[in-house]
Amino acid sequence: MLLRLRVPLSTLEKDSILKLCKELGYSTRFVAEALLELEGPSRPEHRSRLEDHAVVLEVMAAAAELSARPPGGPDTVVAIGDARFGGEFVSIVSGPCAVEDGERLLEIARAVRDAGGTLLRGGAFKPRTSPYSFRGLGREALELLARAREETGLAVVTEVLDPRDVEEVGAVADAFQIGSRSMGNAALLSEVGRTKTPVLLKRGMAATVREFLLAAEYVLSAGNPNVVLCERGVRSFDSVTRNLLDVGAIAHMRSATHLPIIADPSHAAGRSDLVAPLARAGIAAGACGILVEVHPAPHEARSDGAQAISPRELHALADEVRALADLTGRRLAEPAQPALTSGRSDS
Amino acid sequence: MLLRLRVPLSTLEKDSILKLCKELGYSTRFVAEALLELEGPSRPEHRSRLEDHAVVLEVMAAAAELSARPPGGPDTVVAIGDARFGGEFVSIVSGPCAVEDGERLLEIARAVRDAGGTLLRGGAFKPRTSPYSFRGLGREALELLARAREETGLAVVTEVLDPRDVEEVGAVADAFQIGSRSMGNAALLSEVGRTKTPVLLKRGMAATVREFLLAAEYVLSAGNPNVVLCERGVRSFDSVTRNLLDVGAIAHMRSATHLPIIADPSHAAGRSDLVAPLARAGIAAGACGILVEVHPAPHEARSDGAQAISPRELHALADEVRALADLTGRRLAEPAQPALTSGRSDS
Amino acid sequence: MLLRLRVPLSTLEKDSILKLCKELGYSTRFVAEALLELEGPSRPEHRSRLEDHAVVLEVMAAAAELSARPPGGPDTVVAIGDARFGGEFVSIVSGPCAVEDGERLLEIARAVRDAGGTLLRGGAFKPRTSPYSFRGLGREALELLARAREETGLAVVTEVLDPRDVEEVGAVADAFQIGSRSMGNAALLSEVGRTKTPVLLKRGMAATVREFLLAAEYVLSAGNPNVVLCERGVRSFDSVTRNLLDVGAIAHMRSATHLPIIADPSHAAGRSDLVAPLARAGIAAGACGILVEVHPAPHEARSDGAQAISPRELHALADEVRALADLTGRRLAEPAQPALTSGRSDS
Amino acid sequence: MLLRLRVPLSTLEKDSILKLCKELGYSTRFVAEALLELEGPSRPEHRSRLEDHAVVLEVMAAAAELSARPPGGPDTVVAIGDARFGGEFVSIVSGPCAVEDGERLLEIARAVRDAGGTLLRGGAFKPRTSPYSFRGLGREALELLARAREETGLAVVTEVLDPRDVEEVGAVADAFQIGSRSMGNAALLSEVGRTKTPVLLKRGMAATVREFLLAAEYVLSAGNPNVVLCERGVRSFDSVTRNLLDVGAIAHMRSATHLPIIADPSHAAGRSDLVAPLARAGIAAGACGILVEVHPAPHEARSDGAQAISPRELHALADEVRALADLTGRRLAEPAQPALTSGRSDS
Repeated sequence: MLLRLRVPLSTLEKDSILKLCKELGYSTRFVAEALLELEGPSRPEHRSRLEDHAVVLEVMAAAAELSARPPGGPDTVVAIGDARFGGEFVSIVSGPCAVEDGERLLEIARAVRDAGGTLLRGGAFKPRTSPYSFRGLGREALELLARAREETGLAVVTEVLDPRDVEEVGAVADAFQIGSRSMGNAALLSEVGRTKTPVLLKRGMAATVREFLLAAEYVLSAGNPNVVLCERGVRSFDSVTRNLLDVGAIAHMRSATHLPIIADPSHAAGRSDLVAPLARAGIAAGACGILVEVHPAPHEARSDGAQAISPRELHALADEVRALADLTGRRLAEPAQPALTSGRSDS
Repeated sequence: MLLRLRVPLSTLEKDSILKLCKELGYSTRFVAEALLELEGPSRPEHRSRLEDHAVVLEVMAAAAELSARPPGGPDTVVAIGDARFGGEFVSIVSGPCAVEDGERLLEIARAVRDAGGTLLRGGAFKPRTSPYSFRGLGREALELLARAREETGLAVVTEVLDPRDVEEVGAVADAFQIGSRSMGNAALLSEVGRTKTPVLLKRGMAATVREFLLAAEYVLSAGNPNVVLCERGVRSFDSVTRNLLDVGAIAHMRSATHLPIIADPSHAAGRSDLVAPLARAGIAAGACGILVEVHPAPHEARSDGAQAISPRELHALADEVRALADLTGRRLAEPAQPALTSGRSDS
Repeated sequence: MLLRLRVPLSTLEKDSILKLCKELGYSTRFVAEALLELEGPSRPEHRSRLEDHAVVLEVMAAAAELSARPPGGPDTVVAIGDARFGGEFVSIVSGPCAVEDGERLLEIARAVRDAGGTLLRGGAFKPRTSPYSFRGLGREALELLARAREETGLAVVTEVLDPRDVEEVGAVADAFQIGSRSMGNAALLSEVGRTKTPVLLKRGMAATVREFLLAAEYVLSAGNPNVVLCERGVRSFDSVTRNLLDVGAIAHMRSATHLPIIADPSHAAGRSDLVAPLARAGIAAGACGILVEVHPAPHEARSDGAQAISPRELHALADEVRALADLTGRRLAEPAQPALTSGRSDS
Repeated sequence: MLLRLRVPLSTLEKDSILKLCKELGYSTRFVAEALLELEGPSRPEHRSRLEDHAVVLEVMAAAAELSARPPGGPDTVVAIGDARFGGEFVSIVSGPCAVEDGERLLEIARAVRDAGGTLLRGGAFKPRTSPYSFRGLGREALELLARAREETGLAVVTEVLDPRDVEEVGAVADAFQIGSRSMGNAALLSEVGRTKTPVLLKRGMAATVREFLLAAEYVLSAGNPNVVLCERGVRSFDSVTRNLLDVGAIAHMRSATHLPIIADPSHAAGRSDLVAPLARAGIAAGACGILVEVHPAPHEARSDGAQAISPRELHALADEVRALADLTGRRLAEPAQPALTSGRSDS
């Protein structure tokens, strides 16, 4: 590693950084006034430790963290039910924004599976900007999700918001969703990190890629290696879309990390007519899957109705995703079981 | 209120929005194809309820929420120990980023009081971007803060990160700090909202003013009226400062809300040499106080040392704040008790 | 149209806005205190005229401007040599960042044509952030571009920076490029608007879609209907890419305007390894073409070498673009003439 | 200087960067695989030359450019009429957004001088987002400005948009304004750089501080040392203000450059009620002056009426600026001549 230091350094400051390096097991050599070269253990945790020192401006040639892809290393493939993320696989995660009703959920779940989706998403505990908005059915929704899984064979992912709910949500969910607002919630990340349940981790709305990967590091370093990253758009200055889907970050992360990354075109677009082009863009940039909100009657949805596509649109989109996966040398992970139901549930 | 609707509307969509309005107690009238006028109860919670509907693009002339300043209404003044925020008062909140050591904390606390500060900040539970960074001394730090309060008479504010810690932190703290990363943490906001302990709520790093005020609304609507807002800079594209102090948001919020708003120049600057000018800018824009990190030996700090000013610099800054408060028709709330110690603890 | 007005209005203010509406030929009716309905000519220029009034917060249901796509209206197809943008066509624009040498340019031009590109880009006058950077060969480069066109049959696009150069550049170029820095340069836009030469207009680095379309409006309203828009990434807070390719804006503009829009993955990425995934993402989102920088020896390039892909990579990318065009129901406009040269010029 | 290089380097790449260093007169030494140390002339133009090379990621300990403040060096004080920017001086620049009428201009000019302003601003050529907006009276406005100067003794600053207008505008103006949209217009910057007339250079709406200083470098390196920088707010994600006044950039630039920097609270706020607090914040952060739009009847203004303050408000603001200048150890440069007119022109 190479430390870039703030200059000029006082003797106290110099002693202090040299002492820290020594404590961490490094031998040091100044290669320029502001550059200190370190030789030693290069452990994952050392980059942050060094960055935290007041006189360190930057750690160059930094020790690899757990999320980093070793040179030439393979993708980590995360499996959730029939869904596979990474490597040769692309998967479709879909469902309603919030679980609102058992029949409706079942209708949607069937449509998801019929389209080729393998993982059902549905909010039980909803993070909302306003305290007056619908915040989900909670436990009741968890039960409905479990029933939908039973009926359709789809695995289930749902958001957990509160460290106190991890056990209860984990008893039902095949994967935890950590939403954008929670990306920096260390208590929550540590808690899901102590389980082995896969974690679908969304990027914070103005998080850098490094901050995003350090959030994943909370989970990985706690012992849970099953992290699927999700790019869902970052905040921008224009309002034609709700967020700005960062396809460059998707492309960059394909080489920067071994973890799979998927795209959420629904929250990026914020409007149903742009979901399909953004989903295609995400896959084309290298994403290993998409997370799409679907609803047969968006005006009845209690949250985010404006961005929900119809089951019919999901079906068409899934066909495009198949073709794009193929074009980029991959394939869609399809539901293993034959569909139990015959009816299509398009709106 | 006036609803701006997405057009064209299907009959189902139209019926659906009219039904919601009726349920909330409003009579309706279309004043244009895309504009629905509502007459009725105008309750705080209705704006969000209406915004959540899929066909509503915007709620105009919206019902006032609890944080909104009624036309011509007075400032809410929040008292924490000798500190006063709002109305004619400006207060200085200061202390180390993290509590690291009892002696050091005491040394800093005395310097804060000597400078004219009334509220001691110090992190016990630290939110960190990396799991490998120092995350605070936890309970031990709470005890040290309690001791520093006893010695100096300063009230104490410290961050709470996890809803499970609210009770324990609240047993010591005179005010909860909710950090930027937690602004969207509804579980935590609701939990501190159920207490009467004042809440120092920091703006999320890319939160709009409306989102910021809705986070306050979580606390207010849960029954706790004692909220002090804190602008600490938003994320931007340049790196000469760590964040971009949004003085326009401070100025705007002075009229938009009755709640007091303070500025955190330390996190905005990210470097000690810019803390004083940003503190001055914040007060000049209308802030009711500043939150400043101070450390006599920044190179020994285990977090954010680069942005800590010295006790001597704090003293000079406090004099400027006094003068600026005066210039804007206000005054600095000073420590009520005479200093118990004679020694100044400048570095 | 509907005007949303700042309230309360003084009598003078009210009279003033009513007078303006009348002058523009509209009859008016207040449908709410803050909403004024206008009936009348709905001419393209009226939206801006009304927005400029001090009491107008917003013009709703605005009169369509020239760049706006009428409901259900067709794409405008812009032809430049063998290149076609819009409708069923996708085209590849490629070449070096700057023209540096006749032989090198010819080598690159042949590679572009061999890959399936139809339009050769090459900078003669370079907009540079620093006065000390290479600013292009100027006139000499124009001559080299003309010669490359003669040899390869490719049409040529090159940037014009100064209204005084429009005639000279226009004498050689088949299309003007207006760069990001010039998007707001009204004098320049008006000047190229007075010609019939197609204009490849790049989005400013923090321009909203509306501002971008108004820049096009400068060209259109001056009488030149041949505008190709180019999304090249917007400024963001992260540095893993040079800019953030706004695929949402591409998707949105496909319905908002009848003008063709292409993507520039080179300036979005800022690094050669991400050019291909971003190019794919742009086409997948709906772009009608890509603008890609290519160089056989990037370390010899005098500008933007880091983002240049090799001729071999361009060839591979063109194949992907063909497949993606097909997937989205379109096709690549190929060079009409058979290649005159046999040699491939890959690096 | 130290170059940080992209690794691994091919032999061709290595030879190429070493050759460039040699050509520029530097001896080189690799201090680490990715770090090349340079000893030699350290001329202002070399940083950019080196940064332009494809394998250079960053130039550290860079050669100082002309705008850079040498360690401990003094402020450059720029004089325009009675206005003084930098050093011990703070000045007020004010006037209408656009010159619209001779009588009105005179009325405003008198109010500016009466308040303590020393430099009259007024747009003759207006840069507008829309081609349909009022674009200024052009030459006629220049004449009106000249007359207002004669009557009031105020120096005059007005924007120049087109390099072809530099001579004509320069024949009247005491200072050129280069607007935000033109900050990256090299042709224009070079043209005003060839004169000795002071240049008031506004920051581009998403320009980094470095890009801003390089725009100044265009003027300085062309031979004109009289540059006044102007921070006018950067683009952000929130809409409560038109732009986000970057007080951190103001504070940073006070040490980074010897050039004076002023604040434009009018364009930052976009609404008259926030102009005064933002002006105060700018001065408190270290700005050497403010640029404020004033209009006695904003609803009659043909551009930016919403952000114009009244003459009365300007008067009050000037008093605050005087006090703030004093508080920060400076003083307001006042009009040298006694006011020729007795009447105050408040609205």
